Amino acid sequence: MSAILLAVAGMDPKPWETSLRSRAPERDLWLWPGQVGDASDVIYACVWLPPHGLLATFPNLKAIFNLGAGADHLLADPTLPQVPLARVVHPDLTMRTVEYIVLHVLMHHRRQRHYDAQQRDRVWRVGGQPAANEVAVGIMGLGTIGGAAARSLAQIGFQVAGWSRTPRLIAGVQTFHGASALDPFLARTEILVCLLPATPQTKRLVDLALLRKLKRNGSAGGAYLINAGRGALQVDADILAALEEGTLAGATLDVFEEEPLPATSPFWTNPKVTVTPHNAGDISPQVFAACVLEQIERCERGLPLDNLIDRMRGY
Amino acid sequence: MSAILLAVAGMDPKPWETSLRSRAPERDLWLWPGQVGDASDVIYACVWLPPHGLLATFPNLKAIFNLGAGADHLLADPTLPQVPLARVVHPDLTMRTVEYIVLHVLMHHRRQRHYDAQQRDRVWRVGGQPAANEVAVGIMGLGTIGGAAARSLAQIGFQVAGWSRTPRLIAGVQTFHGASALDPFLARTEILVCLLPATPQTKRLVDLALLRKLKRNGSAGGAYLINAGRGALQVDADILAALEEGTLAGATLDVFEEEPLPATSPFWTNPKVTVTPHNAGDISPQVFAACVLEQIERCERGLPLDNLIDRMRGY
Repeated sequence: MSAILLAVAGMDPKPWETSLRSRAPERDLWLWPGQVGDASDVIYACVWLPPHGLLATFPNLKAIFNLGAGADHLLADPTLPQVPLARVVHPDLTMRTVEYIVLHVLMHHRRQRHYDAQQRDRVWRVGGQPAANEVAVGIMGLGTIGGAAARSLAQIGFQVAGWSRTPRLIAGVQTFHGASALDPFLARTEILVCLLPATPQTKRLVDLALLRKLKRNGSAGGAYLINAGRGALQVDADILAALEEGTLAGATLDVFEEEPLPATSPFWTNPKVTVTPHNAGDISPQVFAACVLEQIERCERGLPLDNLIDRMRGY
Repeated sequence: MSAILLAVAGMDPKPWETSLRSRAPERDLWLWPGQVGDASDVIYACVWLPPHGLLATFPNLKAIFNLGAGADHLLADPTLPQVPLARVVHPDLTMRTVEYIVLHVLMHHRRQRHYDAQQRDRVWRVGGQPAANEVAVGIMGLGTIGGAAARSLAQIGFQVAGWSRTPRLIAGVQTFHGASALDPFLARTEILVCLLPATPQTKRLVDLALLRKLKRNGSAGGAYLINAGRGALQVDADILAALEEGTLAGATLDVFEEEPLPATSPFWTNPKVTVTPHNAGDISPQVFAACVLEQIERCERGLPLDNLIDRMRGY
């Protein structure tokens, strides 16, 4: 017996199960919790935020496939089995995250929340805002997704810059790298987009001190923050303080220190904040199933896995 | 004496006045209503929705400059003086309108109103939506702005098509033209963007019969409409009916049959509708002032005006 385990938390597992079953009806698929038989049968695990300790209960595990890009929760499991750990890298994930980033940059840029409030009050008044080519967007994290987002935003007209750990070159985009370049990057950025992985180096990086280094967006009075990376990058309380003091004119948060965001969080009701349920890179279960099954076939043919997560680097 | 008249309705004239005065302090600028002296001194008029009959009161008018792209209100004035009539064509106007179109296509595509409602209810749930490359956007009107919007949307990943009166070629965009191609264009379009000028041929084109020809966006159940063109293109009551019966899943309207939108309009409170105050192509007064003063200098040097409106064609 050789089984695939599907263990996802915080979202409905049904679409993932359906996609895997329909693409590989001949394979044994076990849905955690509940449908798990003999633990020694589980060879592959497809996971999203599995409880720490769960994966260590499968002694014959050969590989772990992470449903999303962020692996910090997995890597924080002290009992994580020492088997190859892969994430999904697919144009579908890139495209969807870019959709999200472009949407929320434009929502801030075009003052959509101001116009939403005017609509509620039945007010017809043109407020005026700068044009895209007068506004500096900065992207922290210039991997596949960050690079694609930078290109789309530059195409719309924004002044786009990016900051990354190691040097990158992207046509039409000003790039900064390394710790010493962070302050100059922030000083020219009015709309900050976070796409960094969560690592010991990036943990709680987005705090009040960092946000105060951003350039104020002229007519809005403050800068804008979009975090479509990981919740561990940010200090929730500092974002609220930055909104309160006017350092930030608005924020879009797809990720939080604690997810799901607790019902008591002040983010839900802050009129300057847009909350989304960690769906920026909400990939298609069909795409995920195809990627995972291709990886399993590579395993079975003795080939190395693609898109391995580097445990030392953290992503 | 030779004066420039500034006559704008429905918005604050102050920024336009300031820009013109600061760029050309040596010129006489008259602000209507109120600051108008001897009518025979007015040689140039900068206008937005001037009351019909007003322009005919200036016997020495040499040219009229329209602040926006749409000239239907002007051309409907039976007393409009027979002088050259120019509109602003500038990359600033194109860029701003493209920002608006991309924003609102993505708001529908990413179900932002659904997530706004979830945020109000403090609900953390990923709904799922198709990826951009599974969704067909159709743009009616492929002039400078429509072409640029098509390119930006295609770059994000959408299946983009355009429909225009005369044939157009845009790389990566499927183009349709003429009356006979309208139905096939609509049949493949899930998100319809209207950018047509208002002419006798396009008046009330967007009615219930047309909306019913759109392709239903799979997971949304209905199509989406964005009108960033002219209010005369649409039948307000038919859009409401299409929303009511589910033909449309949502609409973003920047223009209306009557503007400002009356406080009694059901559009204000319809949860499927986003209302904006005709600001899609809200250009910068600085850009407008520069364009107009350049045109006035052309006039004074005996050169023909740029970007003339064709009275027969209507735009």
